[in-house]
Amino acid sequence: MSEPIDPYYAVIFTSTQKENIEGYPEMANKMETLAKQQTGYLGMDSARNNVGITVSYWKNLEAIKNWKQQSDHVIAQHKGRKDWYSWYNVKICKVEREYEFKI
Amino acid sequence: MSEPIDPYYAVIFTSTQKENIEGYPEMANKMETLAKQQTGYLGMDSARNNVGITVSYWKNLEAIKNWKQQSDHVIAQHKGRKDWYSWYNVKICKVEREYEFKI
Repeated sequence: MSEPIDPYYAVIFTSTQKENIEGYPEMANKMETLAKQQTGYLGMDSARNNVGITVSYWKNLEAIKNWKQQSDHVIAQHKGRKDWYSWYNVKICKVEREYEFKI
Repeated sequence: MSEPIDPYYAVIFTSTQKENIEGYPEMANKMETLAKQQTGYLGMDSARNNVGITVSYWKNLEAIKNWKQQSDHVIAQHKGRKDWYSWYNVKICKVEREYEFKI
């Protein structure tokens, strides 16, 4: 059963990309490295097929806001809208319950 | 900027699978078809590389609970733990803010 937890936050970033995404993998790696250095960063999961899903986890809304405004990240967001993404959606969520299965 | 919205819920399902996942793709398709028929279902996004991420969206917690207890889904969950998944994590989240970019 799911258990109530100390709430934390998830940012669900869903996207579709253009055909030519030159420079994107390097930027994605750089952003992951920088995100990990942010106060309040808790973790990240990513996968991409037709749609890309990146979920990052944060201690609170302030940490999310600080990462959104981090200067290198602002440049990456701008480049993403200009060069790489045809569409994206960002959802800010409060994680309220959680459970896990492991063999 | 992100906008406050009428809250709805997201279930973030993150998983790793075993090598032999015979029968899984058919079951995943069947579950997606069934989920779409549930009251309060709003949508779903999926991608898988090293890790699989499926995020499903629901009108409220009751809809999530009903889907978790749906009889065919209960069978699928049991088979998933027995045959397909080496690990999974489920997070129940309230979506509080959202924004979108489109070319």
